[in-house]
Amino acid sequence: MTQRAKNPVLIVGSMAFDDLTLPSGVFPNVVGGAATYAAMAASLFAEPRVVAIIGTDFPDDVLRDLNARGIDTSGIERADGKTFRWAGRYSDNLASRETLSTELNVFADFRPKLPDSYVDSGCVLLGNIQPELQLEVLDQVANPRIVAADTMNFWIAGERPALTRVIKRVEALVINDEELRQLAEEHNIKRAAQAVLAMGPQHLVVKRGEYGAMLFDSEGIFFVPAFPLEDERDPTGAGDTFAGALMGVLAQAPRIDGAHLRRALMTAATVASFCVEGVGTARLAELSPSDVQQRLDELRNLVYLEN
Amino acid sequence: MTQRAKNPVLIVGSMAFDDLTLPSGVFPNVVGGAATYAAMAASLFAEPRVVAIIGTDFPDDVLRDLNARGIDTSGIERADGKTFRWAGRYSDNLASRETLSTELNVFADFRPKLPDSYVDSGCVLLGNIQPELQLEVLDQVANPRIVAADTMNFWIAGERPALTRVIKRVEALVINDEELRQLAEEHNIKRAAQAVLAMGPQHLVVKRGEYGAMLFDSEGIFFVPAFPLEDERDPTGAGDTFAGALMGVLAQAPRIDGAHLRRALMTAATVASFCVEGVGTARLAELSPSDVQQRLDELRNLVYLEN
Repeated sequence: MTQRAKNPVLIVGSMAFDDLTLPSGVFPNVVGGAATYAAMAASLFAEPRVVAIIGTDFPDDVLRDLNARGIDTSGIERADGKTFRWAGRYSDNLASRETLSTELNVFADFRPKLPDSYVDSGCVLLGNIQPELQLEVLDQVANPRIVAADTMNFWIAGERPALTRVIKRVEALVINDEELRQLAEEHNIKRAAQAVLAMGPQHLVVKRGEYGAMLFDSEGIFFVPAFPLEDERDPTGAGDTFAGALMGVLAQAPRIDGAHLRRALMTAATVASFCVEGVGTARLAELSPSDVQQRLDELRNLVYLEN
Repeated sequence: MTQRAKNPVLIVGSMAFDDLTLPSGVFPNVVGGAATYAAMAASLFAEPRVVAIIGTDFPDDVLRDLNARGIDTSGIERADGKTFRWAGRYSDNLASRETLSTELNVFADFRPKLPDSYVDSGCVLLGNIQPELQLEVLDQVANPRIVAADTMNFWIAGERPALTRVIKRVEALVINDEELRQLAEEHNIKRAAQAVLAMGPQHLVVKRGEYGAMLFDSEGIFFVPAFPLEDERDPTGAGDTFAGALMGVLAQAPRIDGAHLRRALMTAATVASFCVEGVGTARLAELSPSDVQQRLDELRNLVYLEN
């Protein structure tokens, strides 16, 4: 990509092979990882730029496919060794999952290095990686409009000081409800949200899986339902898809304010619902803008009340 | 009450003493029961008529207080023996509870008998009692505009044929998500809802606790969030409060259609949220119409998106 991106979204995170045991069957070697899902989702609205690490086993044609979707892959480092691999098994109703194995491989030595062409990214999504690495990325970008960070229970428990520094420096935190409770050490969602907002970010987005998502900010609380699906196949990456779509929509927004965030949240929930309908990124890959618009209208009707 | 009720709501269900072990303390002898919560909630909007059974130990002044709220208690039978008693203990975060003991007492021999003055009730709420008794109540009312029924896991497992007859005869079923899944023998909420609607009712209301409620009908799906509370004290009766408020609002409605049901659902979620803020019916008892209206506006803003 030599053309200058109009609405760039910098996405840092994992790229992986997933071995998925789903109610519908066993699917080995599914291309996944938080950065992959987020970039695919963001590419529906903006020009993602990915910073990640892959091994020598990662297929070139997957990178070419990402390029063809307008995703800048020049920040993806190919290292000697194998790509990160995760194996997981979902319960019959998809309500829970267990990790069967995690092989960090080249991801263990990931040190995100931004190409010069990424430095001006207006929107930045710090995927769920070690907080120290999230800080290193923040040190490499110049004056972004909005930085959003994800994290996980492992870093909340083991890297709280560094994570606290990340949270202080980002505009938005995008985490799930269990992570929120763990981070705030408070079960009540509203009190937990207040505690996390007091740590620094202007916006807190809480993902609640099949129950939707909530936004907490100075304008109050906003609630978006999950789109009710008849055929759920694979929840893997739905949260990363949500975050990627959110940042993609915000990259297009004339300004980052409560109204645009609320709108972006509805779209993010819509795109995330498609993710669950296919194995890996299969459903995301075939999505058209009109698919998204149609379901977004349906999602709005779920809460719409005539005056 | 000699004056003819304008918007009567017939409510059949339990009246009870609850012994509650809550994070905030132990509260013995709390007046509860599904009919009590539902009638208190419905009385904010309409004139409830209660059919229930109490023992000789039930205080007259509680009945007088209900009367003072416009609740018709002439269908409450006082029988020799003790009132139904339930003891339960909630977890520290109120997310789960266990039943410590259940003493049916006079409730074991409850056979609902409607006073003649109740027969013309336009709205009927069949609380969670034995399905055979719900059918007996249905046989005693003349042409109601809407009948809604609640039920529980115990009847779904043990009385499915009778429960199926109830469901075939009611316009609305108001149950929680676990009951829906059990009734439909299907985990997916949307497919489960379709299966239950195929059993007869026009409207299915699914209560999801802290995640809100959903309505399924021929017009589609409607979603209402739970009002996020900072101070949750006692979830006992919140579902019954929800159902009672729903029927109270519908009793005022010029007609029972999708739009009015959706509006009623928002109000029901609002009133239910107040219930959780006090022990037993304490918070419901002090509610004013303006309290409800103000929080209803806040609840609408949770999902409101400017065009």
